[in-house]
Amino acid sequence: MTTKNRATNVTWHSSHVERNDREQLLKQKGFTIWFTGLPSSGKSTAAFTLEHELVKQGHLAYVLDGDNIRHGLNKNLGFSAEDREENIRRIGEVAKLFADAGLVTMTSFISPYRKDRDQARKIHQEAGLGFMEVFVDAPVDICEKRDPKGLYQKARRGELRGFTGVDDPYEAPLNPEIVLKTEKKSPGEIVDILLGYLIDNGFLPE
Amino acid sequence: MTTKNRATNVTWHSSHVERNDREQLLKQKGFTIWFTGLPSSGKSTAAFTLEHELVKQGHLAYVLDGDNIRHGLNKNLGFSAEDREENIRRIGEVAKLFADAGLVTMTSFISPYRKDRDQARKIHQEAGLGFMEVFVDAPVDICEKRDPKGLYQKARRGELRGFTGVDDPYEAPLNPEIVLKTEKKSPGEIVDILLGYLIDNGFLPE
Repeated sequence: MTTKNRATNVTWHSSHVERNDREQLLKQKGFTIWFTGLPSSGKSTAAFTLEHELVKQGHLAYVLDGDNIRHGLNKNLGFSAEDREENIRRIGEVAKLFADAGLVTMTSFISPYRKDRDQARKIHQEAGLGFMEVFVDAPVDICEKRDPKGLYQKARRGELRGFTGVDDPYEAPLNPEIVLKTEKKSPGEIVDILLGYLIDNGFLPE
Repeated sequence: MTTKNRATNVTWHSSHVERNDREQLLKQKGFTIWFTGLPSSGKSTAAFTLEHELVKQGHLAYVLDGDNIRHGLNKNLGFSAEDREENIRRIGEVAKLFADAGLVTMTSFISPYRKDRDQARKIHQEAGLGFMEVFVDAPVDICEKRDPKGLYQKARRGELRGFTGVDDPYEAPLNPEIVLKTEKKSPGEIVDILLGYLIDNGFLPE
């Protein structure tokens, strides 16, 4: 071990670093952008495109999605109504932790039920953390035409049960902060809409 | 909405920002420091003291502990053997997400069972993320004398069942990266031991 003194004037601490101190370090506030919409509506593409742009501009951002959640934290959950609710509950709690840590946090999940999304919003608001819902609004026939994984096809053939948009309901947000009509929009237009909202509402500096 | 163009040369992205790009932004690597030890051994105090020092030095750090986990993500878990395992499993997965996002992530939980801690280590290593176990090693009689919440007392009186160190086992780490004997150590000494390890092993720059 090196012997030079690394830390001076260190005192015991029995509580977390204040959120504000991390925000000063990062020069940004943490908050959560919750993307919701039908399968293949373009949620992840919008979230990833914004994530790349934010990081390019020097903002720490992170996307929670099926890839990093369903195979890890939520790998012990299936697709029953109960498990779907618990899936979204856990994602809401993890997003809240990320936002508390100062990150621009994005979640990209179908999250079909209004009450589950409202609960995620509630825990953020109670903690004084920003939360905005982005309704990725593409007509089901467009989503079905995209269908990169062939899931709509499988659901139509009855090989997948409880598939949102086919035989399970999607409850569209009543008052989303942002509606993204991904059809015929360029990536630049999508990012402009999202960044515009964040800047105009004080989540990001001009 | 403001009308000036915010984003230029934006292209669609269908995958996450690379870990390396976030590390360059933060000028640090993400990894997890897993504090384990008996109740009242000093885990949280050590973790919070290091967290404050790291943030003071410009490093983004975050502590996952009972406060932000047990009342949120894991509020639907009790203290049965099965729930304790699931508790630590989820914490390991969330720590991995935080480390992947580039944070110096600390967890402060008794985490009494070796196999649960080993599993947390395994998922980090498989993802190419640093993981180190800090055994906060204080004798049970010292922990019991501290007992700020009176929990040992309650357990001795039989009012709490399955209390680690009284009627539930604590499996000490066999090969922890760091052993912290918190007795008679100053906060500066604790931080020097931890920072020393991190610098000497390339987790933090000199």
